[in-house]
Amino acid sequence: MNVVDLIELKRDGLALTDIQIRWMIDAYTAGDIADYQMAAMLMAVYLRGLDAGELAAWTDSMLHSGSVLDLSDVSSRKVDKHSTGGVGDKVSIPLAPLVAACGVVVPMISGRGLGHTGGTLDKLESIPGLSTALDEAGFRRVIETAGFAMAGQTESVAPADRKMYALRDVTGTVPSVPLISASIMSKKLAEDLDGLVLDVKTGSGAFMTDVHRARELATTMVGIGEARGTDVVAYLTDMSQPLGNEIGNSSEIRESVAVLKGEGPEDLTELVELFGGEMLRLGGKAASTEEGRAAIRRAIEDGSGLTAFAAMVEAQGGDPGIVETDDVLDFAPHRVDIEASHDGHLVRAEARGLGIAAMRLGAGREKTDDIIDPGVGLTMRAKVGDRVEKGQPLVTVWHRDNGKLDTATPYIDRALEIGDDPAVPNLVQERIE
Amino acid sequence: MNVVDLIELKRDGLALTDIQIRWMIDAYTAGDIADYQMAAMLMAVYLRGLDAGELAAWTDSMLHSGSVLDLSDVSSRKVDKHSTGGVGDKVSIPLAPLVAACGVVVPMISGRGLGHTGGTLDKLESIPGLSTALDEAGFRRVIETAGFAMAGQTESVAPADRKMYALRDVTGTVPSVPLISASIMSKKLAEDLDGLVLDVKTGSGAFMTDVHRARELATTMVGIGEARGTDVVAYLTDMSQPLGNEIGNSSEIRESVAVLKGEGPEDLTELVELFGGEMLRLGGKAASTEEGRAAIRRAIEDGSGLTAFAAMVEAQGGDPGIVETDDVLDFAPHRVDIEASHDGHLVRAEARGLGIAAMRLGAGREKTDDIIDPGVGLTMRAKVGDRVEKGQPLVTVWHRDNGKLDTATPYIDRALEIGDDPAVPNLVQERIE
Repeated sequence: MNVVDLIELKRDGLALTDIQIRWMIDAYTAGDIADYQMAAMLMAVYLRGLDAGELAAWTDSMLHSGSVLDLSDVSSRKVDKHSTGGVGDKVSIPLAPLVAACGVVVPMISGRGLGHTGGTLDKLESIPGLSTALDEAGFRRVIETAGFAMAGQTESVAPADRKMYALRDVTGTVPSVPLISASIMSKKLAEDLDGLVLDVKTGSGAFMTDVHRARELATTMVGIGEARGTDVVAYLTDMSQPLGNEIGNSSEIRESVAVLKGEGPEDLTELVELFGGEMLRLGGKAASTEEGRAAIRRAIEDGSGLTAFAAMVEAQGGDPGIVETDDVLDFAPHRVDIEASHDGHLVRAEARGLGIAAMRLGAGREKTDDIIDPGVGLTMRAKVGDRVEKGQPLVTVWHRDNGKLDTATPYIDRALEIGDDPAVPNLVQERIE
Repeated sequence: MNVVDLIELKRDGLALTDIQIRWMIDAYTAGDIADYQMAAMLMAVYLRGLDAGELAAWTDSMLHSGSVLDLSDVSSRKVDKHSTGGVGDKVSIPLAPLVAACGVVVPMISGRGLGHTGGTLDKLESIPGLSTALDEAGFRRVIETAGFAMAGQTESVAPADRKMYALRDVTGTVPSVPLISASIMSKKLAEDLDGLVLDVKTGSGAFMTDVHRARELATTMVGIGEARGTDVVAYLTDMSQPLGNEIGNSSEIRESVAVLKGEGPEDLTELVELFGGEMLRLGGKAASTEEGRAAIRRAIEDGSGLTAFAAMVEAQGGDPGIVETDDVLDFAPHRVDIEASHDGHLVRAEARGLGIAAMRLGAGREKTDDIIDPGVGLTMRAKVGDRVEKGQPLVTVWHRDNGKLDTATPYIDRALEIGDDPAVPNLVQERIE
């Protein structure tokens, strides 16, 4: 087979066969196809697309380019949730222990933050001692202890995706629905799942800001799951404002623990219950999502979710005292309130701008090798739609450094707007199965 | 400037500015933009196109990526002809001396053959001693002596094009009208021309087999000339059958000399007169193409074209005796006739298949480093539309090796067809200015 022939087929809008796609992904991973040839192919895919059959073969080839978890000896069903990422999105952290407490195993592989979005691994690592770098044996041990585990991707999972993502990043081929879908699904399916809930964010703080593109992404990923016989349900949810009240690392752990104690903010708790209900249904522990939601609520009320969380923290080397007190977490010493300039309703609290502000404070990364400061961040003191009065704090900034504060503040100011409209954004916009 | 931003603009169908294009071509030539990034850009250009302004800037940047001839001290106007290539296309060889004999300088830079198409340089080098590897000083000396020169491109001309062409060749981005146009025109305009005649071939033996694509290519190249203030005229001409009777190297030189003596085949002579007439008009030596054609005919009749040819051959180190006898040329010792299987009219003599047959005999190159055998080739003994009788030779094969003959013959057999239709293909199909 000759890669130039395959590039020409895709360039001309024709579909590649399974065999052609498998050969190409394998040859690229092995270094037998040059980066410049794959770059031309990726741009052709970007502009011509992939049909359902091509997408299934592409995902499967990337999945099998590396090692795949074998959890067949785990008797329970395995279900996971993936979010396309946003600002203040800590759903996974309370969600996984609640689902595990209800008897469905969650083998969760997560990522790190970049740009305005945070990452689950960074947030977890604000718990002193906790490690997210687990090898397969370690990952299985944590699952046996706590019913779930939360770790980073190892080098051996989907090396084709890692190599291809690095190339897409420098060739203008990142925001392609089929390429994003194949990238996400190849890594998630490597977890040996029975079911998957996808949280596709839309709005200013989301990767896909446009709802049509977000819907296309959701539908495409559900289709890939279907083609492989894995139950996948996707939700489109709002990311026009941050989720919950906290944007940071230590502070998002504190807010996650609050959810597990039944004291979390309404929007965050709503998504945890909804996705938890779906995961229990997919995991065979509930006949319906509603029945699953009720079980999740019980796991909050009876503290079994909190206990599962403590078990995971301890099994991954962290201080389980975190579930009793947040004294073990690091918080920045300085606080500044951003106040309402006049009376009205908060009509805008733009997730993207607030995410960038948090990154500038040190809570996120501008480049992949930047170091995270777990103690800095923003606390939202009002949500969109809330009545606010002049002088009332809208955002509290936790900072360690006046210079960083000065670069963050303009982003916060531009992100906030007070007006007349008391409308609240629609949190859960669509369910796609 | 950041190349990823430029790739994204082109990917999204937007036009790049002059400054962006210049920066990109310069940075790529200097090695500051990676091949994989340029490959993504080239595929985006392939699928999104370039508008007239982008194309002018792209061509100009490639042209100025290397050295440009300065012929400003030559008092005559400088005019050249370029063909997109075909089988038996030796038009340049008699054309350039005839135009020079009429007082217009022709600074002709030509190419080599590849695949089924022949190259002017390979044909010229079948004249013993003749060199086409001239530096700028040598090129100017030959022009001073003969009024024209015929050489290969030096390394210093349009290095951006050379680097980019090599990349296009391995990334499925060769047959793009804007990229082909920019490549051809950047090299031709580096000759410091006042006028240019483009011969865009269509039909099976042409690079652009489809007439619509050929017309698009012709129109695009004329537009690039216009944008730079260089007079460019393009013709679409037939390449469904070979041009003239000879396909080979020594044999095409013999046929070229025959044209200069007024003894050439009709189709070849027609194009030489037509393009010569245009070139004299563009060069200011004729008020109209018709007047220019008449001057070309006179230069054939009075032998001044032949004299100019001999002067060029001698100035480039070759044996000028070629204009008196073809004894100095090498011809293969063996001849085989392919005969008509039944009575009728020759309805097909497919240029592409006959060109591949000649290549298999050794007259052309399958790979760029193959060695040419000047003595082998095909002589067409009938043209499409001719009445033929059973047993009459249709093609004479000149060969040196029975093995190669055996691989060539099936291509000849498949290229020829006898039927009822006496129609003759239309040689000159369109003029585009």
